[in-house]
Amino acid sequence: MKALRYHGARDVRYESMDDPTPQSDRDAIVQVTACSICGSDLHIYHGHGFSEDLGFCVGHEAVGEVVEVGRGVQRLKVGDKVMLPAAVGCGRCRSCLSGVIQTCENGQGACYGLSARLQGSQAEAVRVPAADMNAVPVPDGVSMDQALMMTDALATAWFGARNAEVRPGASVAVIGLGPIGLMAVESAYVMGAHVVYAIDPLPARRALAEEAGAIALHPDEALARVREDTKGRGLDCVIEAVGGEATVDAALRLVRPRGVVSVIGVQQAKRFAFPLERAFGAGLTFRVGTCSVPEELPALFPLVRSGRLRPEKYISHRLPLSDGPEAYRLFESREAGALKMVLTPG
Amino acid sequence: MKALRYHGARDVRYESMDDPTPQSDRDAIVQVTACSICGSDLHIYHGHGFSEDLGFCVGHEAVGEVVEVGRGVQRLKVGDKVMLPAAVGCGRCRSCLSGVIQTCENGQGACYGLSARLQGSQAEAVRVPAADMNAVPVPDGVSMDQALMMTDALATAWFGARNAEVRPGASVAVIGLGPIGLMAVESAYVMGAHVVYAIDPLPARRALAEEAGAIALHPDEALARVREDTKGRGLDCVIEAVGGEATVDAALRLVRPRGVVSVIGVQQAKRFAFPLERAFGAGLTFRVGTCSVPEELPALFPLVRSGRLRPEKYISHRLPLSDGPEAYRLFESREAGALKMVLTPG
Amino acid sequence: MKALRYHGARDVRYESMDDPTPQSDRDAIVQVTACSICGSDLHIYHGHGFSEDLGFCVGHEAVGEVVEVGRGVQRLKVGDKVMLPAAVGCGRCRSCLSGVIQTCENGQGACYGLSARLQGSQAEAVRVPAADMNAVPVPDGVSMDQALMMTDALATAWFGARNAEVRPGASVAVIGLGPIGLMAVESAYVMGAHVVYAIDPLPARRALAEEAGAIALHPDEALARVREDTKGRGLDCVIEAVGGEATVDAALRLVRPRGVVSVIGVQQAKRFAFPLERAFGAGLTFRVGTCSVPEELPALFPLVRSGRLRPEKYISHRLPLSDGPEAYRLFESREAGALKMVLTPG
Amino acid sequence: MKALRYHGARDVRYESMDDPTPQSDRDAIVQVTACSICGSDLHIYHGHGFSEDLGFCVGHEAVGEVVEVGRGVQRLKVGDKVMLPAAVGCGRCRSCLSGVIQTCENGQGACYGLSARLQGSQAEAVRVPAADMNAVPVPDGVSMDQALMMTDALATAWFGARNAEVRPGASVAVIGLGPIGLMAVESAYVMGAHVVYAIDPLPARRALAEEAGAIALHPDEALARVREDTKGRGLDCVIEAVGGEATVDAALRLVRPRGVVSVIGVQQAKRFAFPLERAFGAGLTFRVGTCSVPEELPALFPLVRSGRLRPEKYISHRLPLSDGPEAYRLFESREAGALKMVLTPG
Repeated sequence: MKALRYHGARDVRYESMDDPTPQSDRDAIVQVTACSICGSDLHIYHGHGFSEDLGFCVGHEAVGEVVEVGRGVQRLKVGDKVMLPAAVGCGRCRSCLSGVIQTCENGQGACYGLSARLQGSQAEAVRVPAADMNAVPVPDGVSMDQALMMTDALATAWFGARNAEVRPGASVAVIGLGPIGLMAVESAYVMGAHVVYAIDPLPARRALAEEAGAIALHPDEALARVREDTKGRGLDCVIEAVGGEATVDAALRLVRPRGVVSVIGVQQAKRFAFPLERAFGAGLTFRVGTCSVPEELPALFPLVRSGRLRPEKYISHRLPLSDGPEAYRLFESREAGALKMVLTPG
Repeated sequence: MKALRYHGARDVRYESMDDPTPQSDRDAIVQVTACSICGSDLHIYHGHGFSEDLGFCVGHEAVGEVVEVGRGVQRLKVGDKVMLPAAVGCGRCRSCLSGVIQTCENGQGACYGLSARLQGSQAEAVRVPAADMNAVPVPDGVSMDQALMMTDALATAWFGARNAEVRPGASVAVIGLGPIGLMAVESAYVMGAHVVYAIDPLPARRALAEEAGAIALHPDEALARVREDTKGRGLDCVIEAVGGEATVDAALRLVRPRGVVSVIGVQQAKRFAFPLERAFGAGLTFRVGTCSVPEELPALFPLVRSGRLRPEKYISHRLPLSDGPEAYRLFESREAGALKMVLTPG
Repeated sequence: MKALRYHGARDVRYESMDDPTPQSDRDAIVQVTACSICGSDLHIYHGHGFSEDLGFCVGHEAVGEVVEVGRGVQRLKVGDKVMLPAAVGCGRCRSCLSGVIQTCENGQGACYGLSARLQGSQAEAVRVPAADMNAVPVPDGVSMDQALMMTDALATAWFGARNAEVRPGASVAVIGLGPIGLMAVESAYVMGAHVVYAIDPLPARRALAEEAGAIALHPDEALARVREDTKGRGLDCVIEAVGGEATVDAALRLVRPRGVVSVIGVQQAKRFAFPLERAFGAGLTFRVGTCSVPEELPALFPLVRSGRLRPEKYISHRLPLSDGPEAYRLFESREAGALKMVLTPG
Repeated sequence: MKALRYHGARDVRYESMDDPTPQSDRDAIVQVTACSICGSDLHIYHGHGFSEDLGFCVGHEAVGEVVEVGRGVQRLKVGDKVMLPAAVGCGRCRSCLSGVIQTCENGQGACYGLSARLQGSQAEAVRVPAADMNAVPVPDGVSMDQALMMTDALATAWFGARNAEVRPGASVAVIGLGPIGLMAVESAYVMGAHVVYAIDPLPARRALAEEAGAIALHPDEALARVREDTKGRGLDCVIEAVGGEATVDAALRLVRPRGVVSVIGVQQAKRFAFPLERAFGAGLTFRVGTCSVPEELPALFPLVRSGRLRPEKYISHRLPLSDGPEAYRLFESREAGALKMVLTPG
């Protein structure tokens, strides 16, 4: 089959590779109908990936159709339309059955497309381990575009807002307005925020946040503006959706005493100089982590189906999978309003 | 001064009565600039009130200006614009200081305008006991109309939705579309409901609920429609905003297993035939009660100020206080789209 | 095999019946090593059961060893020691996979031993549908006696205290001191209650509650004593573990404004005269329902393993299964300190 | 009057100073009957205090009797037995009235005995600002010793366990077994922990934790033991009660994915090298801060009164206030089992 394979920094190629095959009777093979590029794929693209492997297929956001199921697969059948959450669990332990991969009792949580261990889904087909858990049928009323956005980006945005404890009446900031940050703005409003400050250096992204109802600010003006609006107190909830030390530090300056900072930007810095003394006086909650997609779906499906969340509007480009290398280049450049890049095989 | 006084069933008169005077140095006198009629005032109007008294001034929704404060009043001064929450607390105990009157440790919670014990506020002026707690300064950015709507109706609607445990993604029904029910619809959406079914026999009220985004249903069709839409399961949350046995029973039929019914309609039936066996199998939460207005204000003020909640749009009529008797008649009739009737002294 | 079969009021017989066989490849057959009698079995014994069937095998509390598994069973094998939660779910839907049977999306929740539809477990062997979910391996450090107590009684007691929202520092009452009520007393203390009033007419049962640290009261004295101790306010949380109208009414009198009543006694009255007016003034939460055993196990296993909960001490009698009819008679009589009656096949 | 005054590193003297006098009509003067030394007083004692002032009176834990009240004090009278929470709020804003000083809307939160701005309470008498809020009558059934322990130490321990989200069934570690750490062990058990690992280098302190039911470990062995017991997963909740960078780092190693670290040790390091990458993979909550004593009292009073918490047992020494300098020396040395040092004026 054809797939996007990683060969080193800024070297992602559209190439042939072996068709995926089941490795256990609980696996399924899914023919990809659409896949997309995540901000965290850029870490790999920049040569700062999560393994030393070369030649593996990248990508962890995909939807498609089941074309083969093992004998032990009980809840899926060939022909089912499915979405593939970015990370997979063992599908057997109580934690995974409840939808939380991070606390998998068998320690088998893994993300597609980070190494040769679990090939990615920017490809014509992909192997899905423990498919009963890890391939989710797309429910009636949810489009394949919407499902694709839920395989990672919307679920992460929603989780980020939940982790920030956004309550009805809350004041919120979102730092970083890529697709995830923009959907975090929308998520915060659905959860009842009375105001969301949306912070990003790019004017085009700020404009999109304003369309979603936010007060859009350049990073250089954010702290002064928030302090003025809140009489020096700060905000109830701050969501960091960048993945940098400076933005995490900014989040900790924007939050009020007893407030919550939620970090969802993928972090590659091993250590961060946490302002312990200041946090101690204020009494802060600092929450860091990745979502488990299945855990978020029970709330997201009805909200997407009813139109309260419209993740598909952040799809900015659609290209054939064969143009994957160009899509990466464009996404990295942030040119042409690049937000979510969707790639279509075949 | 002039006031609306209760003299028996359907006999509310605009008459003179003694000016209010402080009874303790913690009291304040507030000159009423606007007051309004609540659905629960109709219980009194119908002769099914909460005491045997005659001649007392009715009403418990008012805003105005402080014209006199006792020596022990520390946080108010003459000239302050204030709203008067419908019920008053002792203002000394830990519960009242935290804003919850129902658990007043001194058992002093009381509502205006139910008897001669605490005269009502459909008057030119009103005595406010423990005024530091019971008269709330209207914050910047909140209009007096909005503040008036928050003295009871919006606070009760919001509380009703909170008591129903409306979470992001929830499915909700509101039974009864008076001003409180309509604002409960809006509250449920602010809390993240993906769908709200709004149920009332009056087409005009259903039309208003549809404007707010709800699926509006006649009571006769509600159960069948909800069962169809939910494949027989029922809804996560049901809010009863009528105050009748049939509507409470309907609420318990609409809710799903492990769901929550929240009753906020003022109940005068002493007992209700609760479907215990059915509830046991399903595992239900049944929550009944009135709000404590000060408890709801920290969330409501910013939501009203930012425009996410617009209670003032449910003001249907404005009349001089001297037309109070006509206002009661019109409100009772539900004619002319009567929703919130605002009365202005002087 | 031999089993206890129901033939009418007070007519449970130790008889032969067909050996259980798998009805689906997801079923397992479990050889029962111990089973026990639940208070709700007495409803059937009294001829007020849940079906019109005769001749079916009763009982829903059992532990044993897996002796046969269908091809579709993935997480169990022959020889596993298992406990059988009283009610079974479909084991496929998201709700059942999360452990909550009441909201089974396939509507397949059912309890053993209520009718011929799902034969009971007071028998030498029992068929377990969807065995991956419905037969739970007994973890290391948990004895088979403890596991047996967790198949229903302890899980229900714990759930009852959770439903009553027992928080650290709470004041609690438990009405009815059968095994479930006694374990609800212990559960409330583990959750941080500062006081538990334990109410029952039987002195022997009150004595056991006192050993557990409770203030034990006869029903006739309970209300006066609680009012005195709480200066008329009432208790934060009340758990009804009887299943009668008078005791539910007593629970609603004992609770404070804004408090919670949790009903776990099996209810057979179709309707209950709920004190709606009083509840409205006080603002009460009334919660009714049965537990889903798998939902409670993640908290219960470590608490039992560490000895903080010792359910096995409420086993009062051990008899051979062949003495089942005598065990029912003794349990019904409440003689000889009868609490949990354990029956051993073979 | 006589008081303990700070004159530089390890130079606390028992000296005369001016009697305290009211600075506002909302102040009260309290004659101190007992005061005590907190671990955080050692920061000052070591010359690493929170101001450059010299000569001020130290200490922030005291109980006593009201001897003078301003005209604006409404809820206290001369002769009342009171406890003085370590930090004071404005007593006027909604946050302070609800008991949370950290979010005081007037920014007036302050701790006794950190500088000349608010003199300490290791003295014969102390001025209490906004006394209606900041002097708490000792309730019936609570001894003055118990009240003294609640002015800071027990409230902080309890808050630390709450911040760690200790739930029934949780596994917990407490790092640092001074009086606060030891009471955090007890608090965790009251909240339902099934196991508490108590970690400290001092054998005598570990022995006390074992008496409280904990598994006591030396810091050098803690991580290996916890990993073994939890099969590598880590603990649900970790409470840091030391105030050092190494112990905060240890806390972050002991916690499981999706677990909570609660830091209550007083932190003087400005920055801490937070393990951001590791936390991101695991999904952690990191909570840092000081308690607001009034917020904790509603749960603590009944738990202390009923004997579920016995803070007084951690009083190790009682000396006259005139021996204050010796008490500091002894407490610093940790000799003679020094835990809570109580000083008595007069």
